[in-house]
Amino acid sequence: MTMRETTIDRYWHVRAITEALAAPLHVEDQVVQSMPDVSPTKWHRAHTTWFFETFLLGPAQPRYRAFHPGYAYLFNSYYEAAGPRHARPERGLLSRPTVAEVTEYREHVDRAMTSLIADTRDDVWLDLAPLVELGLNHEQQHQELLLMDIKHVLSVNPLDPAYHESPFPSANPSPVGWVAHEGGLVDIGHDTSDPAAGFAFDNEGPRHSVYLEPFRIADRLVTAGEWMEFIDDGGYRRPELWLSDGWHVVTARGWTAPLYWRSEDDDWTVFTLSGRRTVTASEPVVHVSHYEADAYARWAGSRLPTEFEWEHAARNLPVGGHFLPGSPEEVSLAPMHPTAAPTTDRPGGVPRQAFGDVWEWTSSAYLPYPRFQVAPGAVGEYNGKFMSSQMVLRGGACITPARHLRATYRNFFPPASRWLFGGLRLAASE
Amino acid sequence: MTMRETTIDRYWHVRAITEALAAPLHVEDQVVQSMPDVSPTKWHRAHTTWFFETFLLGPAQPRYRAFHPGYAYLFNSYYEAAGPRHARPERGLLSRPTVAEVTEYREHVDRAMTSLIADTRDDVWLDLAPLVELGLNHEQQHQELLLMDIKHVLSVNPLDPAYHESPFPSANPSPVGWVAHEGGLVDIGHDTSDPAAGFAFDNEGPRHSVYLEPFRIADRLVTAGEWMEFIDDGGYRRPELWLSDGWHVVTARGWTAPLYWRSEDDDWTVFTLSGRRTVTASEPVVHVSHYEADAYARWAGSRLPTEFEWEHAARNLPVGGHFLPGSPEEVSLAPMHPTAAPTTDRPGGVPRQAFGDVWEWTSSAYLPYPRFQVAPGAVGEYNGKFMSSQMVLRGGACITPARHLRATYRNFFPPASRWLFGGLRLAASE
Amino acid sequence: MTMRETTIDRYWHVRAITEALAAPLHVEDQVVQSMPDVSPTKWHRAHTTWFFETFLLGPAQPRYRAFHPGYAYLFNSYYEAAGPRHARPERGLLSRPTVAEVTEYREHVDRAMTSLIADTRDDVWLDLAPLVELGLNHEQQHQELLLMDIKHVLSVNPLDPAYHESPFPSANPSPVGWVAHEGGLVDIGHDTSDPAAGFAFDNEGPRHSVYLEPFRIADRLVTAGEWMEFIDDGGYRRPELWLSDGWHVVTARGWTAPLYWRSEDDDWTVFTLSGRRTVTASEPVVHVSHYEADAYARWAGSRLPTEFEWEHAARNLPVGGHFLPGSPEEVSLAPMHPTAAPTTDRPGGVPRQAFGDVWEWTSSAYLPYPRFQVAPGAVGEYNGKFMSSQMVLRGGACITPARHLRATYRNFFPPASRWLFGGLRLAASE
Amino acid sequence: MTMRETTIDRYWHVRAITEALAAPLHVEDQVVQSMPDVSPTKWHRAHTTWFFETFLLGPAQPRYRAFHPGYAYLFNSYYEAAGPRHARPERGLLSRPTVAEVTEYREHVDRAMTSLIADTRDDVWLDLAPLVELGLNHEQQHQELLLMDIKHVLSVNPLDPAYHESPFPSANPSPVGWVAHEGGLVDIGHDTSDPAAGFAFDNEGPRHSVYLEPFRIADRLVTAGEWMEFIDDGGYRRPELWLSDGWHVVTARGWTAPLYWRSEDDDWTVFTLSGRRTVTASEPVVHVSHYEADAYARWAGSRLPTEFEWEHAARNLPVGGHFLPGSPEEVSLAPMHPTAAPTTDRPGGVPRQAFGDVWEWTSSAYLPYPRFQVAPGAVGEYNGKFMSSQMVLRGGACITPARHLRATYRNFFPPASRWLFGGLRLAASE
Repeated sequence: MTMRETTIDRYWHVRAITEALAAPLHVEDQVVQSMPDVSPTKWHRAHTTWFFETFLLGPAQPRYRAFHPGYAYLFNSYYEAAGPRHARPERGLLSRPTVAEVTEYREHVDRAMTSLIADTRDDVWLDLAPLVELGLNHEQQHQELLLMDIKHVLSVNPLDPAYHESPFPSANPSPVGWVAHEGGLVDIGHDTSDPAAGFAFDNEGPRHSVYLEPFRIADRLVTAGEWMEFIDDGGYRRPELWLSDGWHVVTARGWTAPLYWRSEDDDWTVFTLSGRRTVTASEPVVHVSHYEADAYARWAGSRLPTEFEWEHAARNLPVGGHFLPGSPEEVSLAPMHPTAAPTTDRPGGVPRQAFGDVWEWTSSAYLPYPRFQVAPGAVGEYNGKFMSSQMVLRGGACITPARHLRATYRNFFPPASRWLFGGLRLAASE
Repeated sequence: MTMRETTIDRYWHVRAITEALAAPLHVEDQVVQSMPDVSPTKWHRAHTTWFFETFLLGPAQPRYRAFHPGYAYLFNSYYEAAGPRHARPERGLLSRPTVAEVTEYREHVDRAMTSLIADTRDDVWLDLAPLVELGLNHEQQHQELLLMDIKHVLSVNPLDPAYHESPFPSANPSPVGWVAHEGGLVDIGHDTSDPAAGFAFDNEGPRHSVYLEPFRIADRLVTAGEWMEFIDDGGYRRPELWLSDGWHVVTARGWTAPLYWRSEDDDWTVFTLSGRRTVTASEPVVHVSHYEADAYARWAGSRLPTEFEWEHAARNLPVGGHFLPGSPEEVSLAPMHPTAAPTTDRPGGVPRQAFGDVWEWTSSAYLPYPRFQVAPGAVGEYNGKFMSSQMVLRGGACITPARHLRATYRNFFPPASRWLFGGLRLAASE
Repeated sequence: MTMRETTIDRYWHVRAITEALAAPLHVEDQVVQSMPDVSPTKWHRAHTTWFFETFLLGPAQPRYRAFHPGYAYLFNSYYEAAGPRHARPERGLLSRPTVAEVTEYREHVDRAMTSLIADTRDDVWLDLAPLVELGLNHEQQHQELLLMDIKHVLSVNPLDPAYHESPFPSANPSPVGWVAHEGGLVDIGHDTSDPAAGFAFDNEGPRHSVYLEPFRIADRLVTAGEWMEFIDDGGYRRPELWLSDGWHVVTARGWTAPLYWRSEDDDWTVFTLSGRRTVTASEPVVHVSHYEADAYARWAGSRLPTEFEWEHAARNLPVGGHFLPGSPEEVSLAPMHPTAAPTTDRPGGVPRQAFGDVWEWTSSAYLPYPRFQVAPGAVGEYNGKFMSSQMVLRGGACITPARHLRATYRNFFPPASRWLFGGLRLAASE
Repeated sequence: MTMRETTIDRYWHVRAITEALAAPLHVEDQVVQSMPDVSPTKWHRAHTTWFFETFLLGPAQPRYRAFHPGYAYLFNSYYEAAGPRHARPERGLLSRPTVAEVTEYREHVDRAMTSLIADTRDDVWLDLAPLVELGLNHEQQHQELLLMDIKHVLSVNPLDPAYHESPFPSANPSPVGWVAHEGGLVDIGHDTSDPAAGFAFDNEGPRHSVYLEPFRIADRLVTAGEWMEFIDDGGYRRPELWLSDGWHVVTARGWTAPLYWRSEDDDWTVFTLSGRRTVTASEPVVHVSHYEADAYARWAGSRLPTEFEWEHAARNLPVGGHFLPGSPEEVSLAPMHPTAAPTTDRPGGVPRQAFGDVWEWTSSAYLPYPRFQVAPGAVGEYNGKFMSSQMVLRGGACITPARHLRATYRNFFPPASRWLFGGLRLAASE
C-alpha cells in the first residue's frame, strides 16, 4: 500500500471505532449532558468530524461545501481562532441535529476526506499528512472521552443502566514491590527534531534534561483494597492528610469514597460500564481525584511520583497493557474497568501496569517544557493554552485506544476531577 | 353509552391527544430540558401516566403491579405525600427510560385504566370517577405544558427548528374599545356545592361575594404593534414604569422585548412552533411576564384588571375561541400562535378573545378564596400549596385544550415567567 | 406655638431619637452589614439625612450647598429618579464617611432644615410641610430598621454582645379567646380626601369598600409556648403543613425554630437586644417568617387573618401598646422584646396587643387598593413600586416608634423574611 | 545584649511596626472586609497576636490564661489542628471585639511574651526560640497583607480616600537590557541543614539541584508605559495571547487594565495608598495577575522566568531595594508604590530591582521541593498544604518589610489574584 492508501485505511479504521463505541447506545443516551465537563455522545461524534472539516477539508479544498452552515458554530469546542461557538455547558440542550443527521454528517465528511487524501497534489499532501494524523489522534482522545462521559451520563440515572455486558474478572491481590532508580540527569520528552520518532503531541516536547534525585517507585497500582483501609482509617475525615484546596472540596462535596462507589450494607459497590458491581480488593482504585491520590499517598507515608520520575521509570517498558482493543468488532465488548495486576515472580523488578488500566496521577503541574512553542493558528490552541492549574497524569487507561499511548504522553486534568479513569502509583525519595 | 363507557371514551380521547402532540417530535426532542422550569416531553408523557397509576390503579386495584418499580421515584412531580422523587432540574439528565419504553408504560396503564373503569364495583366507582376526571384535566394541563416546554427547547437551538408547519395568518389591526361595568357586589368562583356545576379545580371555589368598584375593560388584547410602540418609547429602559422587582429582573436579564422576539435589521421576528417569522402588528403580544404586562399598562395610562373584574366581565360569554382543537387528528397541525382579534361592528360591546389566544395577566396575587380548604391526602397538594408569590392569569391560550377552560378557571405563574403563553388586556377604574 | 415652631420641635425630637438609638453603639457596630437586607447604623443615620437634603433642601433652597458631593450617590437607597446609587449589598464595605463625619452631616442638615422651616415663604411652606411630615415618618421607619438591623449585626457575632441592658419581664400564660365579627361590606383604608384625617402613607388609601364573610379573630398573639408545641409536633419537618415555597426555604436553610432561637440542653434560648435569654412560654413568638406563620396556622387548624379582617377588627381600638417610648431619654433603655399579653377578665372581648409588641403577618399579598395612584416624581417611589411578591403585616412592634402607627398602617415584607419583628394572631371563618 | 534580650528587642520592634501601620487608620477602616480574600485590619492585629498566644504562651506556660475565651475561635486563620474557627468570608461581619479591645489584647500578649522570653528555662527556650522567630516572620507577612488589604478596602469606596500622604516620584524611562546565563546544574533553595544559614520558611528547602538550559533575563521590570502599549495593541481582547483559564477570567470579569487603573479622559489613573494619581510610563506595572503577566510576556515575544532561573539570577545580588522601612517612625510614611528602575551605565549587567518594588510572577507552579516534609503539628500547616493551583512570585515588594526577604524566598498566589503587589520581569531561552 502507498502511504496514502495506508492513511485512508487508518482513517476509516479510527472512524469506525468511534461508531462502534456509540453502537450500544440508545438515541436518548447520545443526547444527555450530565454535567458541564461531559459532552453528549452525538456531540463527540460531530465534533471530531468538524475537526476534519475545519482544519482539512475547508482550507485544502476550495470547493468543499460544509455539510451544514450551522455546524461550525455548534461543534467548535474551544478554538477561538476558528470563530464563535456554542457554550460548552449547553451542549445537552440541543435536540438537533439528530443522531441520524450526525451519522450523515460523518459519512459526508468521510467521503470527502477519502477523496482529499487520495487525490490532493503531492506538495499539498506533505502539509496535510500531519494534520490528518493529528485529527486521528484527536478522534482517539474523544473515543476515551466518549466512554468517560457516557459512563457519567448513565451513572446519574437512578435506574443504573449498563452500557454493555462485559465480564468483571477477579484476581488475587499481589503484594507491592519497589523499583529503585539512581536519578541524575535524564532525558525527558519527545524528540521533536527526529523525523523517525513518530507522532507525538506538541506538549510532549522538546526533549530536555531534568535532574532527578534517587527515588523508588511502586511496581503496581494502589488497589481498591488498600483504598478501603484508607477509608476505614478516617482518610476522608482527617484534614492533616489533605492539601487545603482538597480539604475544601472534600467537605463541600461530601466525598467519602471514590466516584461511583456506594456503601451498601457492609460492602462497597461501584458503578461500571457493565452496571453496578461489588468492589474487589485486588482491582486498581479508579475515579479518584488528584486531591484524593495526594492524600492517600501522604497517609501511606509516601508520595506521588513526578511526571519525570514516572517517564524515566517507564521509558524502556513495552507500551502494552489493558487498553481498548484495536478493532471495531471487539471494541464495544471489551472490559472497561481496570483489572488486578498480573502476579510477578520478581517483585520490584519492573513496574507492572505502567501502561493501561488507569491513568496515574503525578505530583507535577502541567507546565510547558523548556523551549516549548505553540504552533501558529487554531491548531496551536490544542494543548498549550491549558497549561494552568492542572496536574499531569501518565500511562493511559483501560478505555484508552490501543496504540495511542507513549512513555512521553502527558494527560492533564484539574486536581478535583474524578470522572476520568484516574488512579495512582506510589513513589518515594531514597 | 353508560357513564362508564363515556368515561372510557373520554379517557382514550384525552390520552390520544397527548400522543398526537408528541408525534411530530424526534426522539431527541423528547429528552431535552432547556431550563429548570421546562420538562422533557417524555417526562410529561410518563408523569401523566404515573398520576393514574399512583392515585387510581395503585389504591383501587390491590393486585395492580406497577409497570416499573423505579418510575414512582422518577415521575412524581411534587407530591410530598407520594414519597421522595427525582430533582426537578435534573429531568433532562435521564436518558432512560427511553421514549419507546415510555410508550409501553402508557399502553400498560391505559389497558389497566380501561379495566378499572369498566369493571370496578359501583360503590368504588363513585369515589374513583372524580379522580379520573381530575387525572384527565391534569393531563390536559400537561398537554399545554408539553407545548410550552417543547417550544422553549426548540428555541434555544441555534438551528431554529420548527415543531410543525402551520399557517401564520395576518389580519388588519382592530381599534380597541372599552366595556364598562358598574361594579357592586358580585359572585366570584365556582359553586362547589352544586353537583350540576361540572368539574372545576379546587382553587376555583368556594363561590363568594366580592365588591367591585365601577371599572371598564378593553374589548381586545394588547397587540404586538402596540408593544412595539412601548419598546420604541423606551419602555424597557425607564425605571419609573416598573415594579421594583420587575426592574431588577429587566436589568439583570437584559430584557428588551418579549421572549422569542429578535431584532433583525429593521424588523422584529418571533420564534414560533412553526419556526421563526416576522412579527405582525395586529397579533396579540405573547410571552411577556407579569412585570412587563404591568409596566406596559402603566405606560399606557391604564392598569391590569383584577381577576375578579376579569371573571365578572367574562362570566356570561361563550367559552369559545382559539384553543387547541379537540381531535387527535387535528391537534398537532393546529396554529399554535395567537391570532388577531376578529373585527367588530360594535367596539366596546363585549370583550373579544376573552377565551383562547393568550392567557391574560391580572393584577391579582394567587391566594385562596374565603373558606378554601385543601383536600386531604396527596391530591390536596394539587393547587393550594402554590398560593404564594404567584400572579393569576385568566382565559386560556391557543395551546390550551378545547373544552378545558371556564370563566372561573385560575391559572398562575411567578411574575417573572415568560415561557407560558402570557399576554394582557387593559382595564381602568371609572 | 405656631405650626412652624411645632414642626421644628417635632423635627428635632424625631431626629434626637435616632441619635439616642445609636448612642449605645460602638463605632465598629455602626459600620457592619451582616446580610444584604441589613444596613449599617451609620448608613441609616446618613440616609435619613440625605432624604431631607434631597427632597427638601435641594429643591427649596436654591443656594443650599450639599454637605458633600459624594453623599448623593452613597446614601440614595432606591430612588431611581434621584440618580445612580451605591449598590445595597455593599453598604458594609464603606469605612468612610466615618461615624463622626455622619454626625457632622446630620448637624449640618439639621441647621439648614431649621432655617428652611422657619424662614421659607408661606406659599412655599404649604408645599413643603407634607414633605417634612413624610421625612419625619420616613425617619421613624428607619429607627425601627436601625434596631432590626443592629440586632442582626450583633447576633451573627459568636461573642453574643448586647445592645443594652433591659429587663425581660415574665408573665403567666393567658388563655386565648376569640372575637367574632359579622362581616359584610366594610370600609378599609385611609380617607385621603379628608384633610382632618392626619398623615398616612399613600399605600393606605384610597378608602374603599371590601366585602367580608363572617369571621373570628384571636384576642391575643400566638405565644412562644404554643410555638414550642408546634416544634415538638414536628412542625418544621412536615411538608403537608407548608406552602411549597415555604417548604423549599425551610429545607434549604435548615430552619428548625424562629430566627435567634437556639436549643441549649433542654431549653430554648433567644438572642435579644439585651443579650441571650431563656425563652418564656407566655411571650409572643417573634422573628418568624410568613411561611412559618402560615404553617403554624394550618397546624393549629386555623388560618391567618386577611389584612381587611385585621383592620376591621382593630379599627376602633385605641392605638396604644408596647411601642418604643416617645422621648430621647427613655428610648434606648426601653424593653425591645415583646411581652406577654395582659391578662383579661373578658376573653374574646377585644383583641389584646393589636398594636405594638410584634407585627402580625396577614394572609394578604401587598397590592394596591382600588384607584391607588403613585405620586409624581421620586417621592412616588416610596411605596407603590414594591407591590409585588410581599405580604402585609399590621399593628406595629415593640421597636416601632410611639405615635407612628394607625389601624390602616400597612407594613410589608417578602414571605421568607425573619429579621423584622414578625409574629402572628390566628383567625378563622365562621 | 544576650540573645534573649535581643529577641525581646526584636519582638517589640516588629510588633511596633504593625501598630505603626495601623496608626493612620480610622476605627471604621479597621473593620471592613472588602472581599473574601481581604481581612480587616483589626483582624490582622488580633490574628498575629493569637499566633503567639496559641503556639507559644499556651503550650509553654501552663498557667497562662487566654485573654478572652472566644478569641481562639475568632482569630484562628486556617489551622485545622488548632480547632474550629470563624469562616474567613465573614471576618467583616464582626463589630466586636472593638479596635480598642484588640489593642488591649496585643498589650496583654506582649507582656506575657516578654516574660516568657526572659524567664523560661534554658532547655525550653531552645525549643521556643525558633517559634518566636516564626511568629515574627509571620507577623511581617501580615504587615504586608494589612497594607494590601487596606488598599483594597479604601479602593472600593467611591470617595477615593487615601491611607496617607506620600510623594510619588517620577523618573525617566530606562531601556531594558538582558542578562545572559549559561545554565547547567545549579543549586536551588535554602540549606536547611546549615545552622548558620539563618531563618527561612520550610517551603524554601531542602536545597537541591536543578538543571537549567541557557537563558537570559531582563535587567528591569516591565513598566506601566510598556503595559499601555499592550493595552493599545488589544492585549486584553486577543484570546490567542492568553491561557484558556486566563481568557475566561478576563472576559467574565471584564478586565481591561491592571487592578486600580481607571481610564479618565485620555489618561490612565491609578489608585494608590496615597490616593488616585496619574500613571507614569516609567513606573513598574503592578497589580496584574499571573494570567495578565503571562499574556503580556507572550505578546512581547518572550516568557516569564521559572522560579529557578529567577533565583539563580538573583542569588548573588545584595538583598536591598525599595522595601518598607525598618523603623516604626518611618514605616507609615514610606512611599508604598513601586518606583522606576534606577538608571544604569551598564545595561544587561545585573538585574535591577530584583528585590523590592513589586513581586515578580514566575512561570513556576508552587510545588514542594524534593524531600520536602511538613513539620508535625499545627505549625506544619504553615506552607505545605497550599501547594496546589498557585504560582510562585519572587523578590518582595515596596510594602514588604525590610530584612524579611531572601533570594530563596517563595511567595505564592492563585493565578487570578491581583490585589497583591504583583508585577513581572521578562525572560527568554537562548
